[in-house]
Amino acid sequence: MHKEVIEEMIPYFREQYGNPSSIHKYGRFARMAIQNARKRIASLINADDVEILLTSGGTESNNTVFYGIAHQNRGKHIITSSIEHDAVLEPCKRLEAEGFQVTYLPVDKYSLVNPEDIEKEISSDTCLISIMFANNEVGTIQPIKEIGEIADEKKVTFHTDAVQAIGKIPIDVKELKVDLLSLSSHKMNGPKGVGALYIRKGVKIDPLILGGGQENGLRSGTENVASIIGFGKACQLAKDNMIQNQEHVRKLGKKLVFEILKEIPYTTLNGHSEKRIPNNVHFTFLGANGEDLIIKLDENGIAASTGSACSVRVQKASHVLKAMGFSHEQITGSLRLTLGVLNTEKEIDETVKVLKKVVKELRAVSPYKEKYNF
Amino acid sequence: MHKEVIEEMIPYFREQYGNPSSIHKYGRFARMAIQNARKRIASLINADDVEILLTSGGTESNNTVFYGIAHQNRGKHIITSSIEHDAVLEPCKRLEAEGFQVTYLPVDKYSLVNPEDIEKEISSDTCLISIMFANNEVGTIQPIKEIGEIADEKKVTFHTDAVQAIGKIPIDVKELKVDLLSLSSHKMNGPKGVGALYIRKGVKIDPLILGGGQENGLRSGTENVASIIGFGKACQLAKDNMIQNQEHVRKLGKKLVFEILKEIPYTTLNGHSEKRIPNNVHFTFLGANGEDLIIKLDENGIAASTGSACSVRVQKASHVLKAMGFSHEQITGSLRLTLGVLNTEKEIDETVKVLKKVVKELRAVSPYKEKYNF
Repeated sequence: MHKEVIEEMIPYFREQYGNPSSIHKYGRFARMAIQNARKRIASLINADDVEILLTSGGTESNNTVFYGIAHQNRGKHIITSSIEHDAVLEPCKRLEAEGFQVTYLPVDKYSLVNPEDIEKEISSDTCLISIMFANNEVGTIQPIKEIGEIADEKKVTFHTDAVQAIGKIPIDVKELKVDLLSLSSHKMNGPKGVGALYIRKGVKIDPLILGGGQENGLRSGTENVASIIGFGKACQLAKDNMIQNQEHVRKLGKKLVFEILKEIPYTTLNGHSEKRIPNNVHFTFLGANGEDLIIKLDENGIAASTGSACSVRVQKASHVLKAMGFSHEQITGSLRLTLGVLNTEKEIDETVKVLKKVVKELRAVSPYKEKYNF
Repeated sequence: MHKEVIEEMIPYFREQYGNPSSIHKYGRFARMAIQNARKRIASLINADDVEILLTSGGTESNNTVFYGIAHQNRGKHIITSSIEHDAVLEPCKRLEAEGFQVTYLPVDKYSLVNPEDIEKEISSDTCLISIMFANNEVGTIQPIKEIGEIADEKKVTFHTDAVQAIGKIPIDVKELKVDLLSLSSHKMNGPKGVGALYIRKGVKIDPLILGGGQENGLRSGTENVASIIGFGKACQLAKDNMIQNQEHVRKLGKKLVFEILKEIPYTTLNGHSEKRIPNNVHFTFLGANGEDLIIKLDENGIAASTGSACSVRVQKASHVLKAMGFSHEQITGSLRLTLGVLNTEKEIDETVKVLKKVVKELRAVSPYKEKYNF
């Protein structure tokens, strides 16, 4: 988390502990602070503050979309992609069990959805299109603007899970013709446990969580004041420093890709080479197991991941890489490295050095050793 | 919030920012810390740690119960009371719209539910009994043990919204034969935005929020690590200091009630005189408007509430006081004062002095002035 974010949150633990629904001064202060944070969140995506619904995170935002749109009787057909996060795929599966029809669009080898496929699949029964902004594993950015135009023309509600992209690249909901957009605070150096859903004015949605009627009845429960303040600050910092941050991270990312491809043979960069969020790099090191790589990197002080952190628990092969047509060998040899604004060039050098060493160690005992003559 | 709670949270903002699902050391550290917090939460109510589901707060816990039990096909009849929090009543209304039958039991003038009424209403179609532990407006503690015995005998799942009672009085889920119990962190000097649902081993429930499969698939979304740690610490402090805290708050409460009834005529204490949580006092000051009282108290540095903070926004007359048989005049003249462990005797003296003065001022211009000859 950014230091400034933590500093801005702490007074809301210590002195400003009011419940925003209370009418006394502690309540009024908390209410005003939330409104200020809401403005900062809205500003990051060029939305109006009344279009920002505060939630407990990206997963709740996504669930709100599927629950909230499905019960509006607009139709029973949903179009999504085969490379969405489980926070989209699992609600889709639930709706299928309830009688909805869900189209899971294929992707190409770069993980890109084809907007023409969407256009073809839209029927009079289609109530929702949900395509993620940037993929959480391989980092590919989808053609959101093209999809937004199709959805707008066909009058179908369009949702994008922008959790991975937000704060990393400029996003303008008006320009992109997006109706619903999910955001998460902790993906942009804000606190965990808070997120938002952008709901374009005029889009009707049912609440997922009912009760005291907070958030205009769309999300009940006492507001998570301090975290919302922190989220607001993180959005402001992301907006103010977008260009410098992007430049810094992109430079580090390019260096990392260049050095790894130069130093380590039998290695490929996955996802699209240009259409990708600057903070994500994703490789396949043939003959080296990704899980083993993570453990060896961890021993050397480098925190990495194979795919989505959210699915390591179940140890299943990545559905994203499968959809991209990867073989079992390619999938098991994959590694995701994510950069932050606080990373340095020195850390990149160190990472390349360590990776080169550990990939070599693993390949020396690999079942694929003879195949490649490592 | 307790100072110790804030101190225990801060490292999870600064250094220990890992995602508990990650396999690297930052992830493992966060995962272990959450397990430790879970044990502390469980310990407060004599549950096992595997029985604690972490949520974003009491409202989500309650919503999880209604969504999660309703879709288990055990029956379509629910028994609850007419004085529940909106976080129970609103999910009930949604289920009614979906074809469920909900029995809203009446209460007596003290706000007490009669366990015999519950027994009478149970049918083979009853899938859930949900009765709050202590009322959020008048503080009355319900006969949870008696209800638990009935539910156990009749094999009906029993939920209690214990948000108001938790940390204030000892609660033992095993002794009380409760199946599901909702907790909230911020009601016990912990952070906002985090809560839990106790789910007794063997009770099947569907998840409300789907995705990456955190919390054994019962609540997806990256865990709100720092807040969970704070919640755990708040539970540990509540447990360790239960007796002293109870004694301190009860003493202050008794003094407040005694002085107010002595100093201010035409005043009644609402709710049960003995069966109440120690931190809540609730009065009717005939001829004085509760909303005006709050504003005048606020001007004098005293933060109070009429009923539930969660419903002030809509300015509706309290459904709790209505169910207790209060007249319109009694309802509008009502005020809730809530005490905390950090309140002092001096603050009680000051509150009584201020209340006496402002009630007198309001009664001097009251439409009921002549009726009572104030």
